[in-house]
Amino acid sequence: MTDLIPVISGLSKKTDSKIVLVVLDGVGGLPMSPGGPTELEAAKTPFLDALAAQSQLGQLELVGPGITPGSGPGHLSLFGYDPLTYTVGRGALSAVGIGVKLNAGDVAVRGNFATLGEGRTVLDRRAGRPTTEKNEEIVAKLRAAIHEIDSTPVEIYTESEHRFVVVFRAGSTPLGAHISDVDPQVTGVPPRDAQAGDEASQKTANLVNEFVKRAEATLSAEPQVNGVLFRGYSDVPHFPQFSDVYKLSAACIAGYPMYKGLASLVGMNVLDVDSVEDAPEGKLDALRREWDNYDFFFFHVKKTDSTGEDGNFDAKVGKIELFDSVLPQILDLNPDVLCVVGDHSTPSRLASHSWHPVPVLIHSKYGRSDAAERFTETEAVKGSLGLRPGTALMPLLMANALKLEKYGA
Amino acid sequence: MTDLIPVISGLSKKTDSKIVLVVLDGVGGLPMSPGGPTELEAAKTPFLDALAAQSQLGQLELVGPGITPGSGPGHLSLFGYDPLTYTVGRGALSAVGIGVKLNAGDVAVRGNFATLGEGRTVLDRRAGRPTTEKNEEIVAKLRAAIHEIDSTPVEIYTESEHRFVVVFRAGSTPLGAHISDVDPQVTGVPPRDAQAGDEASQKTANLVNEFVKRAEATLSAEPQVNGVLFRGYSDVPHFPQFSDVYKLSAACIAGYPMYKGLASLVGMNVLDVDSVEDAPEGKLDALRREWDNYDFFFFHVKKTDSTGEDGNFDAKVGKIELFDSVLPQILDLNPDVLCVVGDHSTPSRLASHSWHPVPVLIHSKYGRSDAAERFTETEAVKGSLGLRPGTALMPLLMANALKLEKYGA
Repeated sequence: MTDLIPVISGLSKKTDSKIVLVVLDGVGGLPMSPGGPTELEAAKTPFLDALAAQSQLGQLELVGPGITPGSGPGHLSLFGYDPLTYTVGRGALSAVGIGVKLNAGDVAVRGNFATLGEGRTVLDRRAGRPTTEKNEEIVAKLRAAIHEIDSTPVEIYTESEHRFVVVFRAGSTPLGAHISDVDPQVTGVPPRDAQAGDEASQKTANLVNEFVKRAEATLSAEPQVNGVLFRGYSDVPHFPQFSDVYKLSAACIAGYPMYKGLASLVGMNVLDVDSVEDAPEGKLDALRREWDNYDFFFFHVKKTDSTGEDGNFDAKVGKIELFDSVLPQILDLNPDVLCVVGDHSTPSRLASHSWHPVPVLIHSKYGRSDAAERFTETEAVKGSLGLRPGTALMPLLMANALKLEKYGA
Repeated sequence: MTDLIPVISGLSKKTDSKIVLVVLDGVGGLPMSPGGPTELEAAKTPFLDALAAQSQLGQLELVGPGITPGSGPGHLSLFGYDPLTYTVGRGALSAVGIGVKLNAGDVAVRGNFATLGEGRTVLDRRAGRPTTEKNEEIVAKLRAAIHEIDSTPVEIYTESEHRFVVVFRAGSTPLGAHISDVDPQVTGVPPRDAQAGDEASQKTANLVNEFVKRAEATLSAEPQVNGVLFRGYSDVPHFPQFSDVYKLSAACIAGYPMYKGLASLVGMNVLDVDSVEDAPEGKLDALRREWDNYDFFFFHVKKTDSTGEDGNFDAKVGKIELFDSVLPQILDLNPDVLCVVGDHSTPSRLASHSWHPVPVLIHSKYGRSDAAERFTETEAVKGSLGLRPGTALMPLLMANALKLEKYGA
C-alpha cells in the first residue's frame, strides 16, 4: 500500500464537523454451515438496517489479502496507518493500555501466568485463567521479590486474568527488543530460553531469562500460578499523531486496555469510561458527556469479538443486536460522519480471528447511494465503496466530513 | 500505487488501432437531496445508454481514497502517471497551455489580477473577473513597463479573465521554484512578500517581489485591476512521453489552456480547435480532420465541470445531454477503443471538485459484458472493471486496442 499519511497530513484541515468511528471488534463472520447465515445476517438489527439503506457500504481488508489481522494491526489500519509499515509490539500496547508511560529505550514485555509441572513442563499456558484479583496478588509477590535485575529497574503490572506486563527501564543505553519467545505456544514442554536476535537485545534477553528464574522461585509454592511465559517484546514506537495527520481532536471510548493503549499511541485522548463487562451505557455516557470537546470519537465494542473467539454464534448475534439497540443513541447526537466497521473478522465457525474482509458502512450527507441494504458481509459486496485496504477508511471519513483540501490545482 | 509506466513502456507496440479517450471534466456527481438522482442519472442520454449496455463499466479513483483531485492530477492519472509521483505546478501547466515553450531552469508563475485598496489591502482576489480583452490590455501595459528585472528576461502572458502567467527565463544558472505565495488567499490583508524556501529560489523570490512592486506602480491609475497575486510557481517538469511509453501518436482536442498544456507535457500534439465557449462542433471537426494522422485522441469537454462548480445541477445535466447528442458523430468514426470518463467528480451539490470516484466506460470489440446498463455513478458500481486507481485506465485502453505484448514467457 502507498503510505497516505504524508499526503493526508498535507491536505487535512480543522473544521467543526464531527466523526464517529464505531469499531465492532471482530464483527465479520461466516455461516456455521454452508448456505446458513453469518452472525450479522442472523442478527435482528432494525436500526443498522435503516442506516445501511441510507449509507455507502463496502469491504475493508485490514492488512492484506489472506492475512488475518491481530487486534493491533487491525486497528492501526482503521486509523490510517499501514500495519505493514507502522508496527507496534503487544507489550508496548499493553503497557500503554494500563496507563504505564514508556520512555525511549525501555522495553515492555507481555507475559502470561502459566502452570508448570514436573521438570518445568508447561501444563496450562494460562494458569487456569486466574481471576484478575488473583493476578494482582501474584503480581504483588513478584514486585516484592524483583525490583531490579543487574541494576536495571523492573516494573511488573497486572493486565487482566492470566496476563501481565513487565517493563525493563533502560538507563543511558537503550534496550533492544529483538528477542525470541519464552512461551513455547504448546503444552508438554518447558518454557524456552529467550535468545537475542541482535547485539542490542543481548542484555534484554539476559534480563528476561533471569526474570523467569526468579519468578519461578518466588511462585514455587503456588499450586497453579507457578510460572511465567513471555511473548511480545517491544520497544517504544512513535506514530505520527492524529492531531498532526488529521488535525483532529480525537477521543477514545473503550473498555479494554489494549484498545486504549493503541488509541493513546496515535494521539487520542483516552476518556474515562465506566464500562463493566463492555456494557454500552458507560460508553454512551462518555460520548454524550464529551460530545462538544472533540471532533473525532473512536467507539470500541469488544464483545462481538470475544463471543466469536468463544465460537458462540448465538452469543455473537446477541452482542450485535445489543449494539443495534443502542445505535439510535449515537444517531441522536447527529454526527456529520458515522462509520460502523470491524477491525477484522472473528467467525464463530473458526473461533478465531480470520482473514475475511470486514463490512464497512459510512453515513454522511455527501455519500452516494448504493445497492447494499443491510450491514452484512454479503450486502457489503454490492456497496459503492468497493473492496479496499483498511488504510483507505480515514481518508474517506475525512473527505465525507469535508476536512480535506483538494490535491493539486 | 505501483508505477506502471516502466512496465507498460516495455510491453507497448505500435499498431493501426485507434483509441478515443473522452474526458467529461468533473462528470461525477451527487444527488441534490437524499434519494434524488445525480446529474448523470437525471440526464436523458439515449446514445450513452446504448453504448453503456455494450461496454464495460467501472469506477476510477484518480489520486487516492478520499482525495479530491485538482484538474492536473486528475488528468495525469487518466494518462497513466501516478499523480502522487508525477507532479506538475500550475504555473508550468498554464504556460505550456498557452503555447509558451519552457526551457530547463526557467520558472513559470501563475498570477491573478486583483483589486487593492487603502494600504495595499486586497479587496478582490480576482479584480472583478475582468474580460479576457481587458486582461490583454493590462498585460500590454505590463509588458511595456517590465522587460527584465536584474538582467533576467521576464515574459508576461494573458491566460484568461483574471489569470495571467509570468515566465522568468533562466540564464546559465537555473532558477529555483520553491517560493511562498504572494496571494494571501483571503481579502482584507495586503499581498504577502514571496519568501524563498531554499537557496536556489532566493533570486526567484527577489524577482517576484520586484515584479509585484513594478506592476502595482504601472497599474496605479487603474480603478479595479491594480494589483497582482502569485501562487503556483513551477520549474519545468519532465514526463515520460506518450510516444515512448505507449508508442502512440497522440492528439489533444481541447478548448482550455490548462488541458492543452498538460497534454503537451506528456507528448501529445495539441490540435488547433475552433471551440468557442467549449462548443463541440469545432472539436468534432478537428477529430474528423485529423482522424488518419493519429492513433490516440484525448477529447476534452470542459463545461460539465464548470456547471458543477457553479452549483448548477440543471446546467450540468444539459452539458451531459449536449455531449450525448454528439456522441454518434464520434461513434461514426468507428474507433477501436472508446472510453468515456471524468477526471474527478464535481457534484453540483458541493459546487466544487470532490473525492468521489468517477464512472468509466470502455467500449471495444474485446470487452466482457457486465450488468451496468447506464453511464451513471450507481450503475458503474455493478461494472466488471471494478473500482480502480485512475492509472489503471491507459493500460486497459492499450490492451483493448491490442497494443500490449504479453508480460513474460
